[in-house]
Amino acid sequence: MKPNVLSKLGRRTALPPISWLMQTALTRPKLISLAAGFTDNATLPVEISRKLLNEILRSPKTGRPALQYGITAGEMNLRTLTAKHLHKLDFQSSSSSFSSLVLENKSRTRTRTRTKDEDEKNYSPARVIITGGSQQLLYMTLEALCDEGDIILVEDPTYFVFLSILQSRGIKARGVKLERDGIDLVHLEKVLARLKKSGELHRVKALYLVTYFQNPTGATTSLAKKSAALKLLKKFERAAGHPLYLLEDAAYRELSFPGRADLPVSRAEPQLRPTTPPTALTLPGAAERVIYTGTYSKPYASGARVGFGILPEPIFTTVQRIKGNHDFGTANLLQQLLAGALASGLYDRHVAKVRKNYARKAAVMKQALAEHFPKNVEIWESGGGLYFWARLPKGISAGVKSKVFQAALKADVLYVPGELCYADDPSRAKPDNEMRISFGSANGENIRKGIARLGKVLKRFVR
Amino acid sequence: MKPNVLSKLGRRTALPPISWLMQTALTRPKLISLAAGFTDNATLPVEISRKLLNEILRSPKTGRPALQYGITAGEMNLRTLTAKHLHKLDFQSSSSSFSSLVLENKSRTRTRTRTKDEDEKNYSPARVIITGGSQQLLYMTLEALCDEGDIILVEDPTYFVFLSILQSRGIKARGVKLERDGIDLVHLEKVLARLKKSGELHRVKALYLVTYFQNPTGATTSLAKKSAALKLLKKFERAAGHPLYLLEDAAYRELSFPGRADLPVSRAEPQLRPTTPPTALTLPGAAERVIYTGTYSKPYASGARVGFGILPEPIFTTVQRIKGNHDFGTANLLQQLLAGALASGLYDRHVAKVRKNYARKAAVMKQALAEHFPKNVEIWESGGGLYFWARLPKGISAGVKSKVFQAALKADVLYVPGELCYADDPSRAKPDNEMRISFGSANGENIRKGIARLGKVLKRFVR
Repeated sequence: MKPNVLSKLGRRTALPPISWLMQTALTRPKLISLAAGFTDNATLPVEISRKLLNEILRSPKTGRPALQYGITAGEMNLRTLTAKHLHKLDFQSSSSSFSSLVLENKSRTRTRTRTKDEDEKNYSPARVIITGGSQQLLYMTLEALCDEGDIILVEDPTYFVFLSILQSRGIKARGVKLERDGIDLVHLEKVLARLKKSGELHRVKALYLVTYFQNPTGATTSLAKKSAALKLLKKFERAAGHPLYLLEDAAYRELSFPGRADLPVSRAEPQLRPTTPPTALTLPGAAERVIYTGTYSKPYASGARVGFGILPEPIFTTVQRIKGNHDFGTANLLQQLLAGALASGLYDRHVAKVRKNYARKAAVMKQALAEHFPKNVEIWESGGGLYFWARLPKGISAGVKSKVFQAALKADVLYVPGELCYADDPSRAKPDNEMRISFGSANGENIRKGIARLGKVLKRFVR
Repeated sequence: MKPNVLSKLGRRTALPPISWLMQTALTRPKLISLAAGFTDNATLPVEISRKLLNEILRSPKTGRPALQYGITAGEMNLRTLTAKHLHKLDFQSSSSSFSSLVLENKSRTRTRTRTKDEDEKNYSPARVIITGGSQQLLYMTLEALCDEGDIILVEDPTYFVFLSILQSRGIKARGVKLERDGIDLVHLEKVLARLKKSGELHRVKALYLVTYFQNPTGATTSLAKKSAALKLLKKFERAAGHPLYLLEDAAYRELSFPGRADLPVSRAEPQLRPTTPPTALTLPGAAERVIYTGTYSKPYASGARVGFGILPEPIFTTVQRIKGNHDFGTANLLQQLLAGALASGLYDRHVAKVRKNYARKAAVMKQALAEHFPKNVEIWESGGGLYFWARLPKGISAGVKSKVFQAALKADVLYVPGELCYADDPSRAKPDNEMRISFGSANGENIRKGIARLGKVLKRFVR
């Protein structure tokens, strides 16, 4: 008897490509992995967490609520702190004033500034939901929005676990070209127009953007591009027959490298200035069309997984109900740990440390890349996050079955083949000449060694 | 523009009935809730958890792994401890020896004893998955098994959040009559035969049983009934064209009342003896057909939500992949907390305390029921768990819109109307004369007061 007892979803759900990479890593003890998206081990907040948990569990009065069931959407205290935190991030960043927004909005459509009321609405704790990492929120958002056969627009390339969810749920992806400051708007309009023409626009539900130090390329989307994308989606809504959402995944947002804003920036590409632009939540109409997901996992601790989102209706209500069916709410103990970290200021202090540390490791990798990589390999450097993106000259494959990947493995160094980050999109072939190289979990010495090994391999294949 | 942007799942996912009850509770500050399934607040392991977390976070060496990402299926240490714990529970219980199993298996089919190899296979850590409560595992199991329109057989009545998942995912439920020692086997066979006749058997995927101190009735399924049910399912597999699983939800298993085995037991109903029978994992063929779900939330702490399961292939592999898409693994910090509790023996000591406490509260409620409830209300008493089940004489509704429920609300006491625990099954009407009454979260005084109020209300409607 064949296991045809499984559901369609069950049969579609594939082994994630990354687990295969991890398995491979385990079989070679000397292998240096520049593939894992793990966070840095040395800066994990062991001491801080101990202090905070002791505080929470110091007495039955404070400890019991942390060990009891809570509310499905999350503890109101953490939701309030999260709303404030997001508001602060959006309105302290250098380019986030409304005036700059208005400047950027010099388009043919009517420019509108946001009111204070809109602000309060957008960052209301009532719109915040707490989840088991932002991954769970991405999953539940797709459950709420998409039937089998629906379409999500994604960046080309994009976060590969998001692609796994789409594949598992039978949702189609359409890729939009990615530039170093976000998606190619001309291509986005072309893709939307093509879908309209083919009668598929009613299947499109959202545009998914990883807006900060993107996984895998490190690209950061400018506010101007977010604004323009939101307008383009709006323009096609009538033809779609329903709202078209901007799903903003800001998982790496807080991992910007400090001081990078002071570095000399190429005049030709001022958008590469590595500050963190405000989120799409700052844009007019955001309360109705922006689904924002974020996480405390990456900046604080991935082992105390707490993610969050700010959601428009009817998505908020629907996701909250779905979360009720998944787990009736994320573990209170973890929620209180994060609330304690945020309220005490320990969170901010920790994040400052983490950012410095990643900046240092990125600098080590940058230097090693300059030293060891062939000059005609194009490197995308980021102002934050965990990744460098490398492009081999066209025609040289770095894919899973390529000679380059096999040789790298033989040389005991692992990277993520870029092709894994491209959606199955029948309208274009997947590029296979790219690599995601992570400095997230490796230490300085291994970064240097790993890049030296990889560079040596590449020099055999790239002139 | 209507919110038809939602998926079918999104549109189907209803407000859980229990949130409406909770909301109601919030609007009446003097209300005593005998509705909530919350665990007892006073016995939550505040001191133990502080001690264990201090131990884990005492140094970077021990603390970092707890704050880092782990493996999707869960930490091997906790999986091993869980497998051992389950084996111990199954083979220390009074009626769990293989000989008794053989005695119970005097059926026409060939009786087979299990071998030691089978044992080791069934309780192998490699078959254990760790999840965010057992709720998440139930959700993912249904994702792995069921398409829209598929059928799950459930107890009549059953756990209402499970019914919410079915409803949300468009899965049909068919009810099987529940007796005080588990489902009515004659009815189960009838239901299966009817589905075979109507050509729907190929849509049936599993039989869902809440086997210990069931939510909502408190009923415990005997091993004989688990064994017979498994055989019946097997018998219908050929006609179904695929495996038919026994999905055993043992969420309340560890909440048995101590000492209850010594109480005098009615000779007419020896099956009511409140010991805890072994799980279906002890039965021949279990490794291929039993999906077992359990949790540390109820016995330890619902705010540190860790659940687990033992799964047959291809369910294990599929659920593991689905979990990768949901959240790539339950928070390591919580997993290590539970592993520490289990390994140190603090878990066992805590559970002993919790069981005594619930037994005490159940005794308080039992006495109050005897004192205040009309004699012709049938009471199902349990040997563990959090619930009493009350049946009003036929014709008197205790449903959500009933006079009884409204009067109870007015008298400031809340219960769960039994009708909420019945699946939508076109083949029978939902009984509406029942109530789930919980002693889980209320303290002794409120239990007495609440039952007195409820009794007073009932005496107005029941002679």
